[in-house]
Amino acid sequence: MTTPSSALTTPRQGAASAGLTVAVDIGGTKIAGALVHPDGTMPVTARRPTPRDVDADAVMAAVAEVVADLAAAPQWSGAARCGIGSAGPVDASRGTVSPVNIGAWRDFPVQARVAAELARHGAEVPTVLVGDGVAMTAAEHWRGAARGHDNALCMVVSTGVGGGLVLGGRLHPGPTGNAGHIGHISVDVEGEVCACGGRGCVEAIASGTAIARWARAQGFTGPDRTAAGVAAAARAGEPVALAAFDRAGRALAAAVAATATLVETDIAVIGGGVAAAGDVLFGPVRAHLATYATLSFAAGLEVVPAQLGTDAGLIGAAAAAAALLDS
Amino acid sequence: MTTPSSALTTPRQGAASAGLTVAVDIGGTKIAGALVHPDGTMPVTARRPTPRDVDADAVMAAVAEVVADLAAAPQWSGAARCGIGSAGPVDASRGTVSPVNIGAWRDFPVQARVAAELARHGAEVPTVLVGDGVAMTAAEHWRGAARGHDNALCMVVSTGVGGGLVLGGRLHPGPTGNAGHIGHISVDVEGEVCACGGRGCVEAIASGTAIARWARAQGFTGPDRTAAGVAAAARAGEPVALAAFDRAGRALAAAVAATATLVETDIAVIGGGVAAAGDVLFGPVRAHLATYATLSFAAGLEVVPAQLGTDAGLIGAAAAAAALLDS
Repeated sequence: MTTPSSALTTPRQGAASAGLTVAVDIGGTKIAGALVHPDGTMPVTARRPTPRDVDADAVMAAVAEVVADLAAAPQWSGAARCGIGSAGPVDASRGTVSPVNIGAWRDFPVQARVAAELARHGAEVPTVLVGDGVAMTAAEHWRGAARGHDNALCMVVSTGVGGGLVLGGRLHPGPTGNAGHIGHISVDVEGEVCACGGRGCVEAIASGTAIARWARAQGFTGPDRTAAGVAAAARAGEPVALAAFDRAGRALAAAVAATATLVETDIAVIGGGVAAAGDVLFGPVRAHLATYATLSFAAGLEVVPAQLGTDAGLIGAAAAAAALLDS
Repeated sequence: MTTPSSALTTPRQGAASAGLTVAVDIGGTKIAGALVHPDGTMPVTARRPTPRDVDADAVMAAVAEVVADLAAAPQWSGAARCGIGSAGPVDASRGTVSPVNIGAWRDFPVQARVAAELARHGAEVPTVLVGDGVAMTAAEHWRGAARGHDNALCMVVSTGVGGGLVLGGRLHPGPTGNAGHIGHISVDVEGEVCACGGRGCVEAIASGTAIARWARAQGFTGPDRTAAGVAAAARAGEPVALAAFDRAGRALAAAVAATATLVETDIAVIGGGVAAAGDVLFGPVRAHLATYATLSFAAGLEVVPAQLGTDAGLIGAAAAAAALLDS
């Protein structure tokens, strides 16, 4: 049941395992599900908007509908495992989540509740829960830009900044499924206070929100004052917009270099809405890396764009399940 | 051949393996060697000063003498493996070292040369090479303050700042044996230039050298203007000395928190000459941790003093050999 792509993954990366994987991707906007084939294709998908202003069970009901949609497909009998990726924070050790952007769920036992829905439809299969940064990392390691790299950092730079790690050829979720949380390391001990309570966090400098806020504070006045608008202005050479992306790129470079220095990652994969700005972001990150990745073992560090788009959450949930359950 | 202490280590921590381990600890001041018993005792030890202003082979001759001293002991026939810990940078993937403070060795193939000396004395045993930060970590995980912790950062704060990691119950040296190099992550992207070429490195703020330099620049004028003198003055309440340790403690707290946020370590063990200052250092580190370790999974992070003293290098080289060769 191996596939051509499995030859490119490490022996311990088990994403090309036998049977279908039920993937569930829980975010603040939508709840998505899929049956994922060992070759990464998704013969069956389902989705619901994430209910707002409702109680915990009403949010869970949307998840149950997604599972029911998948269970109605003829391929359902081939389900062998289930991976759940969720907006964080998650606590994989307890199977609970408290997503910042799903207020109704605090310490919500999503893993047990999903397992119950699977069982209701006859699929008593093992489940795994990871944060969305870890899921994205599993996806990029299996079928994306980190393929073939035994030690990789993958990041999402968007409204927030998240990430995950592959170490020694294996996905490294950490005991609670939160490892790689690079948005909340400090690269400026005297910097601005972050929403998390810290100071000088990467997210407080390099998220789309932070880029746009900083540019506006410096007098940026384009018609579109979001990060996308700042990116467009930077491409046109507007100095404040360029400075905003340079500042973000420096913070990302310091964080990417810190990770390489701490755990010997040799590649950083960056995806998410802000990364879609392309060279406007990647140029400064790569330029500043020369300052912060100085030690011999970190000096060869590459920074590349993510390869998987909107399906990364589902593919990643499936990849994480295979990597963590079958290894 | 397990010992009572082995019950306290994780199943994959193989330091209590059968047979004796030849430990070699290479530093800028001395070259030490020992035969290390599975219970951590050292029935045979040897040492030579590190030769200065000589060529590479003359330095190696001192290592060969240490090995010869050990080989003369009746226990030598029980040698089952060899661990080499060295001042860095090291490249474990190639078996070479280029210690900053041993100028005669650049890309010196110390692992092959030590193996040849062992073989000359009849011990054709497997060898492993790690950096001194990784060795110290192996020692603290086996028999010191990190015992029983599956995810730990261990640091040496001295003339420089080094470290190592235990992840998922196992020593994590990284592909080149340099993982945990916490002295050269930046916690201040606009900070002073470090000797490594980076900016705002932990070592440039929190090493003994940096503490003393900063205190003097702020007008510190005690009789002893080294870090030990600044520590003594801080204990007596001298404001500049207190500020110097607070600044160092904040940088260490940010770095310890960053590591916990990235890889979910739950303890940081700090040893070395500056850590010997005790509460003068640990007080600020713990106080600032509240600012930087904000996420739920990092908030319980402990910071404790190292338990092993001058023998940590030898015990660590032996522990690293057992952990990496017997797992």
